[in-house]
This record gives sequence, C-alpha cells and structure tokens, in this order.
Amino acid sequence: MSLFHELEDAATGDTRPLGAVLDAVKFDDRGLVPAIAQDATTQEVLMLAWMNREALAATLAEGRACYYSRSRRALWRKGETSGHAQRLRELRFDCDGDAVLLLVDQTGPACHTNRPNCFYLRVDGDRVRVTADPA
Amino acid sequence: MSLFHELEDAATGDTRPLGAVLDAVKFDDRGLVPAIAQDATTQEVLMLAWMNREALAATLAEGRACYYSRSRRALWRKGETSGHAQRLRELRFDCDGDAVLLLVDQTGPACHTNRPNCFYLRVDGDRVRVTADPA
Repeated sequence: MSLFHELEDAATGDTRPLGAVLDAVKFDDRGLVPAIAQDATTQEVLMLAWMNREALAATLAEGRACYYSRSRRALWRKGETSGHAQRLRELRFDCDGDAVLLLVDQTGPACHTNRPNCFYLRVDGDRVRVTADPA
Repeated sequence: MSLFHELEDAATGDTRPLGAVLDAVKFDDRGLVPAIAQDATTQEVLMLAWMNREALAATLAEGRACYYSRSRRALWRKGETSGHAQRLRELRFDCDGDAVLLLVDQTGPACHTNRPNCFYLRVDGDRVRVTADPA
C-alpha cells in the first residue's frame, strides 16, 4: 500500500517523515506534479505551475516557491528575475500525492503579464472575457 | 500568435468567442488540462483534477463539474455516485490556456476520503501532518 493510500485512514495530527512522503509523491512520466499557488492572505488562486522533486525540495529548503520551467527545462525560482517572489507559508499534498498546494505571500503581481493572478479569462455565456488589465 | 498570447495584451472587458478559446486550450499529450476546484464561498481550494475537451464542454453545458478520470479513462461527473457534486459558479482559464479554475458550490465533502478537501497533508518541519479526520 502506498504511503498516501495508508494516510487516507489516518486521524488528525498523525505524522509521517517528510522524506518518506517525498519518496511517495506521484510525479508524472515527465517527473512533474502540478503545484497551485494560493495567496495566504486573500485566498486568491494565483497560478498553476509544475514541480519536479528538486523544485519541491528547493521550495521547502528555501521557504520560497521554486518551480520547474517546462519551456526552459530548468528550475525556476519565482521572482528571481521579475522580483515577484512567493514566500512560502504552507505546503500541502493532496490525498493521492499527485498535486501540491502552496500558501504564499506574493510580492507584486503573480502573472507574467503583470496581472495580480493568471486566471483573468472568465467564461461569460458564449464569450470569454478579460477580467483584469495588464500592468 | 496563439489566441492566449494575443489576449495577454487585451484590456478588461475584451471578449472572444468561447469556441475559439476552447480550440486554443493547450491540452497536454494525453489531451488533458489540470483543473482546480475552489469553493466559491469559502475560497478553500478543494481539489485538483483533469479535463479533456469533452469534460470541459460538459462542465460548461451542464453547469456542474465534469472531469476526466485517468484511472477509469472515462468522463467523471463529480458527485454522480457520491452525491458530492460541484455546481459551477465560474470557469476561468489562465494566461497560457493550459490550466482551468472552477469556482463551485460544493455539496458535501470534496475528497473521496470524505474530508472537506483533498489537501489535508501539511508539511510541518521534517514531518507531514494529517490536518483533517476522514468522515
């Protein structure tokens, strides 16, 4: 039985070693899991990005969001060039161990378009509407 | 230039036809995009699941979350067997068109373990802690 499957029946407060959990994370065939960044204060969902094991470990070790850039094929310390970093407040795994949720303090806009978050395109009947201006 | 790339510079209120946006969504090599479900009232991130084009269209047409189950290789109308359905309040695409955010009214627990949401495993130093009891 996988560690995540075993934890389904665990009670509040039960713990497991972080290393064992990291070993059990279900990375996909590219070695990645999706990571959701949510603003710890406003609860706004900021973005979805990807992490490999190294990015996950760097995020936990450094206390700031580090993703894996699929286009650049390299670790991507969010804010390294833009200054729009994400300080890590909490990191959570889901029941299946194949998704990550980060609660963060976002500096500046989260989106590369300089909008506060990446989810600015809203379905409105048979149209899709832009809900925020680029900065 | 892709539709999503073009929309990066669009102003608030600009719209495009839904069909054109759906045609531009960047499904992965399995034909899927990750979909985040967030409680429209509490703003709690409930779960992350996957949608193919058919699931996305069904969600919009039916006004309730319909995902694609990778294990069953079939459409999965959330709540169909559990009763724990998600009524769709809003559907958003991200800047790159490769992730979806659903704002939903969740009936009952979102997680298959009967916890309110799937992200109940929190990193706490060098341990991972269970933060909610199974129902």
